[in-house]
Amino acid sequence: MTADTRPNAVDLSHHLSLLARSRHPSPLKDLIRYMGVKGIISFAGGLPAADFFPMHSLSASIYPANTVLDPEHPSPPSQSVEFTIPRRAAAPAYDLERGLQYVGGRGLTDLEVPIRALTEKLWPPAYADWDVLLNNGSTDGWIKILTLLVESGDHIICDSQIYPSAQAGFVPMGVKAFPIAGDGEGVSPEALAKGLEEWDESRGRRPRVMYTVPVGQNPLGTTMGPARRKSVYDVCVKYDVIIIEDDPYCMLQFPPYVVGQQPTPPAPKADVDAFLSNMSNSFLTIDTQGRVIRMDTFSKTLFPGARLGWFTCNAMFAERLLRGTEVQTQGPSGFSEVITGELLNKWGVDGFIEWNTNLCEQYRVRRDWMLDALAAAFDLVPAEDAGVPGAIGLVAFPKLKANGRRGPAIISFVPPVGGMFIWCKAHYDTHPAWAGFQPDRTDQERVRAFEEKFWIRLVDALILVTPGWYFSPWEGGGHSLHEEGSGHFRLAFSYEPKANVDEGIRRLADMMTKEWTGAVDISAGL
Amino acid sequence: MTADTRPNAVDLSHHLSLLARSRHPSPLKDLIRYMGVKGIISFAGGLPAADFFPMHSLSASIYPANTVLDPEHPSPPSQSVEFTIPRRAAAPAYDLERGLQYVGGRGLTDLEVPIRALTEKLWPPAYADWDVLLNNGSTDGWIKILTLLVESGDHIICDSQIYPSAQAGFVPMGVKAFPIAGDGEGVSPEALAKGLEEWDESRGRRPRVMYTVPVGQNPLGTTMGPARRKSVYDVCVKYDVIIIEDDPYCMLQFPPYVVGQQPTPPAPKADVDAFLSNMSNSFLTIDTQGRVIRMDTFSKTLFPGARLGWFTCNAMFAERLLRGTEVQTQGPSGFSEVITGELLNKWGVDGFIEWNTNLCEQYRVRRDWMLDALAAAFDLVPAEDAGVPGAIGLVAFPKLKANGRRGPAIISFVPPVGGMFIWCKAHYDTHPAWAGFQPDRTDQERVRAFEEKFWIRLVDALILVTPGWYFSPWEGGGHSLHEEGSGHFRLAFSYEPKANVDEGIRRLADMMTKEWTGAVDISAGL
Repeated sequence: MTADTRPNAVDLSHHLSLLARSRHPSPLKDLIRYMGVKGIISFAGGLPAADFFPMHSLSASIYPANTVLDPEHPSPPSQSVEFTIPRRAAAPAYDLERGLQYVGGRGLTDLEVPIRALTEKLWPPAYADWDVLLNNGSTDGWIKILTLLVESGDHIICDSQIYPSAQAGFVPMGVKAFPIAGDGEGVSPEALAKGLEEWDESRGRRPRVMYTVPVGQNPLGTTMGPARRKSVYDVCVKYDVIIIEDDPYCMLQFPPYVVGQQPTPPAPKADVDAFLSNMSNSFLTIDTQGRVIRMDTFSKTLFPGARLGWFTCNAMFAERLLRGTEVQTQGPSGFSEVITGELLNKWGVDGFIEWNTNLCEQYRVRRDWMLDALAAAFDLVPAEDAGVPGAIGLVAFPKLKANGRRGPAIISFVPPVGGMFIWCKAHYDTHPAWAGFQPDRTDQERVRAFEEKFWIRLVDALILVTPGWYFSPWEGGGHSLHEEGSGHFRLAFSYEPKANVDEGIRRLADMMTKEWTGAVDISAGL
Repeated sequence: MTADTRPNAVDLSHHLSLLARSRHPSPLKDLIRYMGVKGIISFAGGLPAADFFPMHSLSASIYPANTVLDPEHPSPPSQSVEFTIPRRAAAPAYDLERGLQYVGGRGLTDLEVPIRALTEKLWPPAYADWDVLLNNGSTDGWIKILTLLVESGDHIICDSQIYPSAQAGFVPMGVKAFPIAGDGEGVSPEALAKGLEEWDESRGRRPRVMYTVPVGQNPLGTTMGPARRKSVYDVCVKYDVIIIEDDPYCMLQFPPYVVGQQPTPPAPKADVDAFLSNMSNSFLTIDTQGRVIRMDTFSKTLFPGARLGWFTCNAMFAERLLRGTEVQTQGPSGFSEVITGELLNKWGVDGFIEWNTNLCEQYRVRRDWMLDALAAAFDLVPAEDAGVPGAIGLVAFPKLKANGRRGPAIISFVPPVGGMFIWCKAHYDTHPAWAGFQPDRTDQERVRAFEEKFWIRLVDALILVTPGWYFSPWEGGGHSLHEEGSGHFRLAFSYEPKANVDEGIRRLADMMTKEWTGAVDISAGL
């Protein structure tokens, strides 16, 4: 074994919240080490007698790791791998009895073995004394991080739009968002530095925590490249900001989409090397100080229902998160742990990566279904050629009529290279009904009201999207990064089969084209 | 169906914390109901495609509900019941795919069906509009209740001793304990009323939340009878206190222990009627106002590793707890839910009760093992005949010598009628080394120091107990209910097999008898 030449994390204990600093180890936990004294008889623990758990064994049948699914004819493949978790097994194998019993806040530490191997293989931290800790998925992880780092009155740095459930965690705590403008790669390091440099202390202490979804950001669909990550990291070092890297879509990173390219079927065999080389890496790999808390989850790679994820962070944060976990949730479900653990045993870490290579390819195909459907329903023109103020990525115009004249820009979007979402900017200011709509209100109020009515008309057209205002960061009032005359909506390409994607985008394009070109007049309903 | 003549809960919304009042429904959750519109195509949800979850089916083999285990030769019985949870099943059966997918904060509501049936059968609330909500076990449930009801600076009413993990949840929040004196049935209603009536507002607002473990209290082992519950409830109504009924041991309620009765083997067949008639009921059955939040768990009845429990409370509290759950943990593990749900399907609610009747009998036998071992190792004398100041229940003296003279009282305890614990009062003031021990310190300091040294000597004698000070309520300083010259320790009878119980109690009695009778002089080590 070669010596670890990485530095240790720097001292970041001044970031701990009062709550986190006030936690003490559960005194009962101290007893556990005395339970190992040779010959001792313990009346201390208060565990139920394991003989009375009413289960013999647990079995599952799973797909082989190298399964290539058929996205157009989805059904479980005929092959499967069976495993049984016996009532008792010799360590370090998974046995059911340990899964059924109390095990403390750390959960089944056997699971840390493949997780550490995966970490060193895919995103080795740039410092030595990192640790991992299981959690019940990233919703649970995020709340635990908030209680670790945040006080009422604080601001959390985030993208121009934020995942609503992340925000719903901190707003009731008296915490606000501090959104930073960005582009197709997410947060702008210049805007971040400026925002921190010019921070007005009358709003509270300068933000010390940044929440980021660096791959396939929800809802923006943006993915940070390595250079962007480094620039953002450097700003965070300068201003002593802790980076929360919430990375559920890390395994869903795609090559760029090229307009007009024919839809390609999924690769017949996983190309693991291409998959790995296409991956934008974790903040951990550039984190020499230990100021990144990474959240991973099995929700997108295996199954959301397991409610199983993990933190990777410096040992001091991990210890405080463990103290919290002991009183917040205890360890994750033992069923989730033994089943996931045994699946990883069967597959191996390399099998897990191969599974995700194929999975990624499935979602790449689904992204292309939707982008192809958009390309079929609109004329897509690169923003730099479209001459439309405020447009991003590709601008969608109505299909060219026989007269050859281009209609109004309807939506624009950046084709995503990761995740599950396409973030569409809706150009309301080119809609015939916009100019006369509620002229006495502010532009922000008008956009919000127009968007709600637009969304209802979409439902009437039997197409459901997520309205843009769902993702608006809560700054205590309006949205400081509001874009004049434009609304947004989010399209998820992850779930619906191809026929529905085609039909849904047709409905969307048909309804919007009719409205934007004035073929229907909706002003009476406004 | 007969009309429900129960009243609705009264308005208790003034009890909500600022945090709980500030929670809003996740906007994404609103979308879900539009997903049911006929013919709609949804690009809104962002769910992973269920076809890509890598699992075909999940199977388990469980014990039949009427299994009678053999506590002296514990091993899984040869019979078992197999079940398989298929990939897809028609509602309302459990299917794996729903267990593997995101399902929202409420979890798999199918599980609410047997839970509601159990509730109406065993502890029907005395008001109509109650609700249930799944959680990840009672550690998770308790933290969610704290965030629902408590502000920094508050006090929580509790027994004279408190479960350390419950306290570890609220102390870092800036919350203190307000312990109330009690007896063998738990909290004294008179002491509770006096404590609330004479509350000194300079300590903070008058306590509004009572934490109680009414059956087999941990560590006291006390169980409240019906009359005691009613008196305590009435005091809580008068002073507008919310009762948190944490009842993990509700299925472990035993007939009284009679000294000198021969150890009885477990009943060869479950006597469900006797089991139910011996049950002290829930606060819910006398709660006409909806001021009780009951916490149940499958940890003691099935398996702790499932991390699965539930709240029963008024609909308003349940809705706020659900809002919290959506951002705190989401629903419980789908694996835990489908496995537990399918087990309950196989057994039925009556089978679940039969299983617990047998389980209870197993723990009754284990309680008797330990009490019989204590009776064999000491002379046990009822406190009322023993003439020992401050003694409770049964007083343990050294075995009578040939000369017929009684030695010093060593410990005293109330034989528990529920739970997993015997709480022993250690009479330090009859120990030869006590009088000269650290005479310049306060009695409370002396007890604590003596107890720590005593505990180490027990470890040296290869016997592990839980020291009494672990359970001391944190009031910001000393313990206001301190008993002069006495310490405590907790014995768990739940876990060790009979041979270890016998040997462990022999070691304990031997070591204590030698010390208390002066046969060994330990003063040099103090």
